[in-house]
Amino acid sequence: MARTEPARGMRDFLPEDVRRREYVIGVIERVYERYGFEPLETPAVENLETLMGKYGEEGNQLIFKILKRGEHEATGQADLALRYDLTVPLARVVADQRGKLPKFFKRYQIQPVWRADRPARGRFREFYQCDVDSLGSTSPVIDAEVCAAVSDALVELGFTDFVLRINHRQLLTAILESAGVGAPQHGDALVALDKLDKIGRDGVANEFVARGIEATAGNRLLALFASTAAAVSLDDAARFIGTHEAGQAALANLRAIFDLSSRTAAGGRLRFDPSIARGLSYYTGAIMEINVPNFAGSLGGGGRYDNLVGMFSGETIAACGFSLGLERILVLMTEHQMFPPDLAMNPADVMVAAFDAAGMPHAMALAAALRRRNLRVFVYPEPDKIGKQIKYAESRGIPCVAMLGENEIQRGEVTIKHLASRQQVVRAQDNAGDAVRELVGRG
Amino acid sequence: MARTEPARGMRDFLPEDVRRREYVIGVIERVYERYGFEPLETPAVENLETLMGKYGEEGNQLIFKILKRGEHEATGQADLALRYDLTVPLARVVADQRGKLPKFFKRYQIQPVWRADRPARGRFREFYQCDVDSLGSTSPVIDAEVCAAVSDALVELGFTDFVLRINHRQLLTAILESAGVGAPQHGDALVALDKLDKIGRDGVANEFVARGIEATAGNRLLALFASTAAAVSLDDAARFIGTHEAGQAALANLRAIFDLSSRTAAGGRLRFDPSIARGLSYYTGAIMEINVPNFAGSLGGGGRYDNLVGMFSGETIAACGFSLGLERILVLMTEHQMFPPDLAMNPADVMVAAFDAAGMPHAMALAAALRRRNLRVFVYPEPDKIGKQIKYAESRGIPCVAMLGENEIQRGEVTIKHLASRQQVVRAQDNAGDAVRELVGRG
Repeated sequence: MARTEPARGMRDFLPEDVRRREYVIGVIERVYERYGFEPLETPAVENLETLMGKYGEEGNQLIFKILKRGEHEATGQADLALRYDLTVPLARVVADQRGKLPKFFKRYQIQPVWRADRPARGRFREFYQCDVDSLGSTSPVIDAEVCAAVSDALVELGFTDFVLRINHRQLLTAILESAGVGAPQHGDALVALDKLDKIGRDGVANEFVARGIEATAGNRLLALFASTAAAVSLDDAARFIGTHEAGQAALANLRAIFDLSSRTAAGGRLRFDPSIARGLSYYTGAIMEINVPNFAGSLGGGGRYDNLVGMFSGETIAACGFSLGLERILVLMTEHQMFPPDLAMNPADVMVAAFDAAGMPHAMALAAALRRRNLRVFVYPEPDKIGKQIKYAESRGIPCVAMLGENEIQRGEVTIKHLASRQQVVRAQDNAGDAVRELVGRG
Repeated sequence: MARTEPARGMRDFLPEDVRRREYVIGVIERVYERYGFEPLETPAVENLETLMGKYGEEGNQLIFKILKRGEHEATGQADLALRYDLTVPLARVVADQRGKLPKFFKRYQIQPVWRADRPARGRFREFYQCDVDSLGSTSPVIDAEVCAAVSDALVELGFTDFVLRINHRQLLTAILESAGVGAPQHGDALVALDKLDKIGRDGVANEFVARGIEATAGNRLLALFASTAAAVSLDDAARFIGTHEAGQAALANLRAIFDLSSRTAAGGRLRFDPSIARGLSYYTGAIMEINVPNFAGSLGGGGRYDNLVGMFSGETIAACGFSLGLERILVLMTEHQMFPPDLAMNPADVMVAAFDAAGMPHAMALAAALRRRNLRVFVYPEPDKIGKQIKYAESRGIPCVAMLGENEIQRGEVTIKHLASRQQVVRAQDNAGDAVRELVGRG
């Protein structure tokens, strides 16, 4: 007997899973289209060199690598790899096609990515990202539109209480410099600050010591961040960094994004939060993260990365984007029963039942006619007793059964039974479509 | 400078490509839903052992293998592989989930597969298959429905002159046995016969000799196949195999499929063709292939494979399916301009243009209002001169520009320009949606 489970950390999606996933993807796509984003798709497989070195040391470890083929297979070397995110492939495409793409290129991309992470609850090795990115402009309109688009998508899916936390890479640098943290320790300081909510002031102070950050600098930082990071205002940050020029420019950029967002879907949801840092190294400006109450981890994140395309093309192309995580959205929507109640989960609107093999060609012809009326039709394939056939329709949630006995066939008629109401009507086969549409409420 | 092209044999799909692909996939999905097929998705990555040995020796060579990770990477060994088709993963899922799946499981699956083939014109290393499969019944209704579904999908896409060639594995065996070809040479005989159209009777006769097939047997076969295979009727085949029991059962099965198909979308398109053999070894009954005139190769193929699930579960589960090749469908539809002329290729219905940075928050608010009216809106992100902005909209095929100058903003109005007609209207910002919908013909 062979193994039948999917590979570790991967999942099979049965019809009901796919229908829920497709519903969510459909909503997100429609919203992204309304924002003028266009669809892009890239291959699952990239040249290994395209991905290596773009995601930090830890990222390199998590890339699935593909063995060379044919005579080179024996070398045990890899030359290809599975897509790790949708941003690096986008940067590669923009560098590759920059002659063909418009000046302002807004794209969405909803595709799976693969990471050789240790599988855990809610963490998979194959998962979908829903990305929007906008290239070609440094205007804060771009950042604000990205925030509006993802907010709108979540609102449309039924999320009501999410918060879009925003910060700025250059403001973070300014804050750390103003506090007196040396550049080599910026990373350490951020990792420690990131735990403020969990381990409190004293915990972070200890962590600063353990990571070799000077007490004076550490105390200055803690004074700014008070007890919870969310309470720091843009004005607090402005006072803290004083005349730090790049920092003040970053604050002006954040103020512009707030201003531009005020009458969009992101409006009341944007919160300045100097504690968010975003792991990926390629961000250069505003950085964002979406959270919902009582849910650990974020629903997605993004930010501005004006230098990534340049790593491929040598030519700097401004860019800003956001990635929503499909799997977490699905977890929450399932937990909170946020799917529309009328999302069809059954395989068909009507089942055609013949009484014997001689009736089968008539069943096929009737099914063809019903399908031309845009109904979803299941033909029961075997000449089982009619009671057994009806039970099968019931078990599958198919609302109607169209029965073709000898009498019906002779008269060119069909008996249509609505299972829930037990209503039963006899119609000419030519009119069966109308009758079924009426019975299933699509008349 | 880094390499920017996609990996060899793989493709990036720019927005217009994706829109065409999504259109075709959407049509196929809708048709498959009408036939009661339900969606299934499986991971891109399978355990290597799941795939090895299922596709013959040549297939094994073309499987992309994934290197073990972490400390095992240095061994140069693979433990995972990329999906090679959609049928073997389906058989694995059905074996894995047989307790949860319905007695008759009809699924469609439209996902990419990967083969390390030598790339050529129209042959890629990543390509999409559009599969329908029906499990749990040996009834010819199943085979006929699969034929009807793929025919209907092609009709709906605008194909008018395709032919669905059908044959039967057990009939093929009966024909070869009746001709006196020994079992070990059945494969050789079929490879030679397959070339009849290309190299003619004499060519095939020579090929028989070269492959060591006895002259008497070869001549008998050629007598049946006459000059072109398509001219052989079911009656010809019946006479040829005489009382061969399994062969006559196969013919009865084919006759039933023809009978059941007569009033379906496959009706006039089914042709018996004893020369098709289908490469894959797992077929056990009827086998099908779709061709169009003046196009080498098939648009898809399929057949009955009653023993494949049993390779995973030990329990025999009857199955029949068909796979349409998306890439070839797209090639033909592009060549013959079969896409609907109104397939939207532009990024938006309307572009919002502010005259300066102060107007930008108003532009964002107007865009939000237009999007609530379900319009696709592009906000021009920079305060360029209005003439330059309008030129940009023109270059992107965006039909309308909504302009917000200082006067308009003061009055709560907006000037909407329809670029093709040069019509220009001034409206209250609250009514802009109606005006744009009217101008773009969605009123």
